[in-house]
Amino acid sequence: MLERIRIVLIGTSHPGNIGATARAMHNMGLADLALVAPRSESRSAEAISRASGADKILHHAPVYDDLESAVADCRLVVGASARSRTLPWPMITPRALGERLPAELADAEARVALVFGREDTGLTNAELQRCHAHVHIPTNPDYSSLNLAAAVQVLTYECRLAWLDHQATDSAPATQGDAESAEEASDQSPKEPGQAASSEHEAVFGIAWDHPPASHADLERYFEHLERTLIALKFHDPDKPRQLMARLRRLYLRARPDQMEINILRGILSATEKQVARGDQE
Amino acid sequence: MLERIRIVLIGTSHPGNIGATARAMHNMGLADLALVAPRSESRSAEAISRASGADKILHHAPVYDDLESAVADCRLVVGASARSRTLPWPMITPRALGERLPAELADAEARVALVFGREDTGLTNAELQRCHAHVHIPTNPDYSSLNLAAAVQVLTYECRLAWLDHQATDSAPATQGDAESAEEASDQSPKEPGQAASSEHEAVFGIAWDHPPASHADLERYFEHLERTLIALKFHDPDKPRQLMARLRRLYLRARPDQMEINILRGILSATEKQVARGDQE
Repeated sequence: MLERIRIVLIGTSHPGNIGATARAMHNMGLADLALVAPRSESRSAEAISRASGADKILHHAPVYDDLESAVADCRLVVGASARSRTLPWPMITPRALGERLPAELADAEARVALVFGREDTGLTNAELQRCHAHVHIPTNPDYSSLNLAAAVQVLTYECRLAWLDHQATDSAPATQGDAESAEEASDQSPKEPGQAASSEHEAVFGIAWDHPPASHADLERYFEHLERTLIALKFHDPDKPRQLMARLRRLYLRARPDQMEINILRGILSATEKQVARGDQE
Repeated sequence: MLERIRIVLIGTSHPGNIGATARAMHNMGLADLALVAPRSESRSAEAISRASGADKILHHAPVYDDLESAVADCRLVVGASARSRTLPWPMITPRALGERLPAELADAEARVALVFGREDTGLTNAELQRCHAHVHIPTNPDYSSLNLAAAVQVLTYECRLAWLDHQATDSAPATQGDAESAEEASDQSPKEPGQAASSEHEAVFGIAWDHPPASHADLERYFEHLERTLIALKFHDPDKPRQLMARLRRLYLRARPDQMEINILRGILSATEKQVARGDQE
């Protein structure tokens, strides 16, 4: 899917921006760059340096005279733009654009173009009006001019996320094994605000553990051991429990300790008990 | 909310990246930049040129010697990182991080830090282990090294989207307290420690939170105290550290202890030290 998304730069004046665009694209798995009437040398030393290893994309990028020819084979053309100009045009957010891509690109022949204008003046009205829709990256209204490559980075990031989500959806009941799919799954699952903290941690943090989580029984044995030790330390008086054990339970349960962690915590308790016994002997 | 998100750059070697970071931040409405041991001049001509009008952020950015001091007042510290290193750590996606921010920053005192490492070597293991979680921007596995400012752009974009979403939700039928009015209420009511925060935290974590979360500095003091105690117990040999402290850090950072819990944990350590001293005396 990503290989059929074309990034079109029109009239770019800084070679560094062309290079940084290639880097941003390659980082996100895109490869199809087209240049329209560039005002700088796309294969200059500065462009290649900023491409930082992604210069293959620069060397393959065709140069066109106008937008028309650069997007002739594309079924959907979206122009990056500040909010609507003289004539209001269909606007789409970067996220909504991403969500739309899998459907737009479902047909293996389909291509989509994302079009970026000049550093100083953006896209002309004529160019904007060749686009099916305009995409606006939400910015600080007091300071809205994004660097060109930064804008490409944000939109290609949304393309990649949409592609990852789509793959995860496609690949049947997500079997939450590796970190990769766990992360993608957590991207997809809508966050229900105010879910129990434990499940939220699991969903949000998509933890890739190196040891299996401790069982309930392991945890209970730990809490017994902890209480015994705290009594020996005279830190805890079961006749005046206040909320001590409840607070400690809440803390450790929230952390969802794994088996190795519980072994470490119990090892610390045993070492502590030994010290108490040594002090008591004399 | 956005003004309480700090971008921390560690050991940046290219002034252009510092400037481009300032521009990315300003575009997305962030302003709090902190530099840790920069390896380049953050106010050089190149930095200012790439900041492209956002150089106010550069001029206000404090310089610290280490990560520790740059994030001491932050309640949540998230490091930008490739997927887990030797010791897996809680991972969060950029989107999930954004979704979490309004809750994390609901308390008007709360600050969040997003930490970015060196262009060549990223964050050290010690730095990564000071973070509650690591955020990974999904990239092409064959070419995963994002430009530093591009990574800042993506994460600050997610911050802005989350803020916009949160505002949109808030401006719906005025239900219970937005952060603003909760704050006013707590200003007026007599200060029972933790009480005003209570309902806010409840909403935030979905559990009955009665005390505000511990700060980074509180946590670091706890970890120092813990290590000292484990050495006294002869449970930990700093010359053969294995991964003991890293594993314990990961466990406690994951649990996000509140101030009362940290007081309890430190109380247990002090009681343990007293026992060790008693045993040593005889």
